[in-house]
Amino acid sequence: MKKYTEMTREERQTEYAAVKAAYEAQKAKGLQLNMARGKPGKEQLDLVTEGLCNALTKPEDFMTDGIDARNYGNVDGLPAAKRLFADVLGCKPEQCFIGGSASLQLMYDAIAKAYSNGMLHSEKPWSKLDTVKWLCPAPGYDRHFKVSQNFGMEMITIPMTATGPDMDMVEELIKDPAVKGMWNVPKYSNPEGVVYSDETIERLASMKPAAPDFMLMWDNAYCVHEFACEFKPFADILSLCEKYGNADMVYEFASTSKITFPGAGISVMATSVANQEYLKPLINVQIISYDKVNQLRHVKFLQDKEHTLALMKKHAAILGPKFKAVLDALDREIAPLEIAQYNRPVGGYFVSLNAMPGTAKRTLALCKEAGVTMTGAGATFPYGKDPQDSNIRIAPSLPPVEELEQAIAIFCNCLKLAALEKMGL
Amino acid sequence: MKKYTEMTREERQTEYAAVKAAYEAQKAKGLQLNMARGKPGKEQLDLVTEGLCNALTKPEDFMTDGIDARNYGNVDGLPAAKRLFADVLGCKPEQCFIGGSASLQLMYDAIAKAYSNGMLHSEKPWSKLDTVKWLCPAPGYDRHFKVSQNFGMEMITIPMTATGPDMDMVEELIKDPAVKGMWNVPKYSNPEGVVYSDETIERLASMKPAAPDFMLMWDNAYCVHEFACEFKPFADILSLCEKYGNADMVYEFASTSKITFPGAGISVMATSVANQEYLKPLINVQIISYDKVNQLRHVKFLQDKEHTLALMKKHAAILGPKFKAVLDALDREIAPLEIAQYNRPVGGYFVSLNAMPGTAKRTLALCKEAGVTMTGAGATFPYGKDPQDSNIRIAPSLPPVEELEQAIAIFCNCLKLAALEKMGL
Repeated sequence: MKKYTEMTREERQTEYAAVKAAYEAQKAKGLQLNMARGKPGKEQLDLVTEGLCNALTKPEDFMTDGIDARNYGNVDGLPAAKRLFADVLGCKPEQCFIGGSASLQLMYDAIAKAYSNGMLHSEKPWSKLDTVKWLCPAPGYDRHFKVSQNFGMEMITIPMTATGPDMDMVEELIKDPAVKGMWNVPKYSNPEGVVYSDETIERLASMKPAAPDFMLMWDNAYCVHEFACEFKPFADILSLCEKYGNADMVYEFASTSKITFPGAGISVMATSVANQEYLKPLINVQIISYDKVNQLRHVKFLQDKEHTLALMKKHAAILGPKFKAVLDALDREIAPLEIAQYNRPVGGYFVSLNAMPGTAKRTLALCKEAGVTMTGAGATFPYGKDPQDSNIRIAPSLPPVEELEQAIAIFCNCLKLAALEKMGL
Repeated sequence: MKKYTEMTREERQTEYAAVKAAYEAQKAKGLQLNMARGKPGKEQLDLVTEGLCNALTKPEDFMTDGIDARNYGNVDGLPAAKRLFADVLGCKPEQCFIGGSASLQLMYDAIAKAYSNGMLHSEKPWSKLDTVKWLCPAPGYDRHFKVSQNFGMEMITIPMTATGPDMDMVEELIKDPAVKGMWNVPKYSNPEGVVYSDETIERLASMKPAAPDFMLMWDNAYCVHEFACEFKPFADILSLCEKYGNADMVYEFASTSKITFPGAGISVMATSVANQEYLKPLINVQIISYDKVNQLRHVKFLQDKEHTLALMKKHAAILGPKFKAVLDALDREIAPLEIAQYNRPVGGYFVSLNAMPGTAKRTLALCKEAGVTMTGAGATFPYGKDPQDSNIRIAPSLPPVEELEQAIAIFCNCLKLAALEKMGL
């Protein structure tokens, strides 16, 4: 195959006609394929269903550390659930605040409390400030950016590198006391699958932001989510921050959404005991206690880090071939043309692709026409605006491999058409 | 027994000595008894455990209306859960937004959205207003008042009558556009067990508040919670409000916390479709979707209103004798002395007692000394301040009957001691 940039106009026209014909044939099939969100597939859900649902059946199963998990109480969660997450994340049980079925809600609520009440070291509630600025490594997770946007923050894009966010830029920006926090997905970042380097993590843990109530949001969503390699141990950000005198700066989040049931698992916010003592009464205004029955169900099923990692191997056996199908198609159809770059993640839920600048939206519009739903173009940037109109997030987890192969084949043709159109015909 | 007011000083001294001796003997037992919160007892939890926990066991159990309840999606909940709550509340399925394990969180979040974003008919977010006032029928539910207090509202106490809140006062106060809403527990109010009369409900549904975004908070926590009578049908506040052109004014809440597991059940916010269309994108910033697995588990177990009412009869068979034990003791020990008034609820979770003014705090301090934990004095009023220092909330649901009898015997003696002290010895 010839690179598009090396083709003559006539060659591009011939190529366009051929790709267009293939695309029209694909479109005619009237498919409904979805690579939009990081949803686990049915096979993954089946993997855990019986074990999880049969973990608690009789009244005597519900007693744990002297607590009846079926009644009100313990807003910070069951001790057994704290021990489980501490084991998985490498922090201490007393640092784990166990939430409900969604870590996103814990993140949102933490920031919402900063707005309505202020955090432990805040001078006043953030709703009383003129401007709150927030650092957003991008490409990043659209739902993080939407939380910031909801509260009217001024989002500042931090370019992502192969080792994490551009730390020179971060260290410069935090000198501004209006900069109140930063999003991070430190392991298998969404969407690029970047693992922050040790140096990046040290620099983040040791920063001295001007804002006394700076929130280092550490969304460790993919802490045990390797699909193409062994489990990679990862630094405990809480003890690192503590080491640098920043114990109250960091809020780490994780959930079992991609370990057991998406949106029906359990979640954790790991943060200093001082932060928890401050936040617990505020959270207690919102809720008496989270679903401890589901906490205990998960503890009985997952047991500990070792058993959790064993389960993740089974998820990897299902996910691995899906990522391979996507990367194989891109290697075969796109790489030789030099019209896009993409990463080769070994964990997480996404493949991030940078199309020829100015073609992401068009590519996805073509996909939609042919029945392939993708994450909206721009979603991986603050305010949903990709300045290059280039980044595309591919989520291969939901469709079965045979559907995924059809979807990615259509996607490759759309990339080609958009590139050829952009180059002029 | 002689009324205390008819006793001579000498008789009171003799009585005090006798009661004090009995109290000291009770105290010496070193009991730990709890009548503080409306927590169901173990027997009630056992009632539902096996049926609920075995409702979903195999992968094929999780499909419902074409949705796999185990995956992300449907932020407003499962259609089957909407049908269940619509059946129970008498509203329409499309008016039901199904939440997580706590209706309190839905209430808090609705008000939090008013603060951060504004509601459908708001001119601006409430955090941008100088003053937000809120109507608080009292005695009322302490957690409602704490939500209002958290957001810095100015709470206005509305006296409760035998037919609900003082409506003349409500109708006068809503002329102030700063009055943005009102708490209600319309059926078996917390703590008095008052059922709002039809006239009160009509007057509430037909009000014309000056604030276009007035929120009539309708916490129907005890909608099917009769323990001493047959189920009493109750007006559907949503259709009533609609009839009076107030479709978007009302937000009704309920949960299964006192039907299945406290804090581990499912919850609903019933409100107009227009309100939901406005709120859904805002809630979707906070959460991808609530725990639909637990929603489906509850649908399979509770099935419909008829089956739910049959279950509530079993709860009533456990709760009824507990309330009887409390009321029998009060009738025997307190009524003849004329030192307190109390209600005789037939549903809900509480007995509300008005002690001799100025003795509630002292009574509860004496209880605490003897190992009986009660809801804090004043908790049933805004800002935790009972102007009369009189109202006491008794929660008889948690202890087994024999413990309850001990606890209430101690409580009666504490009431007597506090009254005698107050009268002077």
